[in-house]
Amino acid sequence: MDQHIKPVELAKAYRLLNHGPTVLVSASHGGVENVMSAAWSCALDFAPPKVTVVLDKATATRPLVEQSGYFVLQVPNMAQLQLTYDVGHTSAVDTPDKLAKAGVQLFKVEGYDVPLVVGSSAWLICKVLPEPRNEQVYDLFIGEVVAAYADDRVFQNGHWAFENADPQWRSLHYIAGGNFYAIGEAVVAKT
Amino acid sequence: MDQHIKPVELAKAYRLLNHGPTVLVSASHGGVENVMSAAWSCALDFAPPKVTVVLDKATATRPLVEQSGYFVLQVPNMAQLQLTYDVGHTSAVDTPDKLAKAGVQLFKVEGYDVPLVVGSSAWLICKVLPEPRNEQVYDLFIGEVVAAYADDRVFQNGHWAFENADPQWRSLHYIAGGNFYAIGEAVVAKT
Repeated sequence: MDQHIKPVELAKAYRLLNHGPTVLVSASHGGVENVMSAAWSCALDFAPPKVTVVLDKATATRPLVEQSGYFVLQVPNMAQLQLTYDVGHTSAVDTPDKLAKAGVQLFKVEGYDVPLVVGSSAWLICKVLPEPRNEQVYDLFIGEVVAAYADDRVFQNGHWAFENADPQWRSLHYIAGGNFYAIGEAVVAKT
Repeated sequence: MDQHIKPVELAKAYRLLNHGPTVLVSASHGGVENVMSAAWSCALDFAPPKVTVVLDKATATRPLVEQSGYFVLQVPNMAQLQLTYDVGHTSAVDTPDKLAKAGVQLFKVEGYDVPLVVGSSAWLICKVLPEPRNEQVYDLFIGEVVAAYADDRVFQNGHWAFENADPQWRSLHYIAGGNFYAIGEAVVAKT
């Protein structure tokens, strides 16, 4: 594993998603791996940390999540802008070599048989908490975060450091039609 | 209603939340109005547009949502930085004049008996789709967006215009401890 990838304590895992980034969702089952992007993912609880993500029934990633009971949310960055768009707008259903075409490389961490996307800023390994009605009616999946990691060049001591890192590390926030915003300046309220 | 506040067609309402801003949640019932901030709110569907929001059982806003069946999500901006922090860190439970202290002013739009926060960038009026299990187990509420509005100084023709608007219009993305990020530069992927 890259020396810059450090575990994030579970009590602070929500901070990886709290600012609302577009995420990459990865999963594998039976030797098949896939990755898609999702703007509709959100923190749901602090401890144990939980998350939500919307996975359309047409996606090829969803059955991998359903069959394995696990998914990974990763926070992509400016260096992954085109990759993030591409894995959200091609499907392995009709483009079997989707991951290779998008330049996605995968790695694993010890203890978990799930694929992580190389070059992301953060990773949350999630175990599905089955909620059949949400999944069927709303395409909404709930996961408990069982392990979290971040690159220490952009997340340090439990805090994002976008303002001190290279701009290539900025998180991506999708709107529509290929248009994203990168996260911007740090601003502080009086506490 | 301020001349700059324009209706947003429901098919594009998801774009108001798609980039993951921290929101203000407002509701009223029986003459009581309240506003809280929430980082955990997310788009859930395109058409009809639906949203999720996490409302802790300890909040004073939650019973207003439960009793009225409606809530409003508003997208606050840099000019509302301190207001956004303050309404998220004081409760009407122990600070009855919370809204006045935070400088919150409310207005209404024709056809809906719900309070909207003056000076926000966008407003989504939502009707609760009751899901008792989600609400009890996860504090997760689902709403259908029945009307949406945005200020035309920052949202134009169905698109955010952060890059062309005054920086005071930038959306806020909360992390923790009073620390937010403002949304940043527009970046475009090849489609």
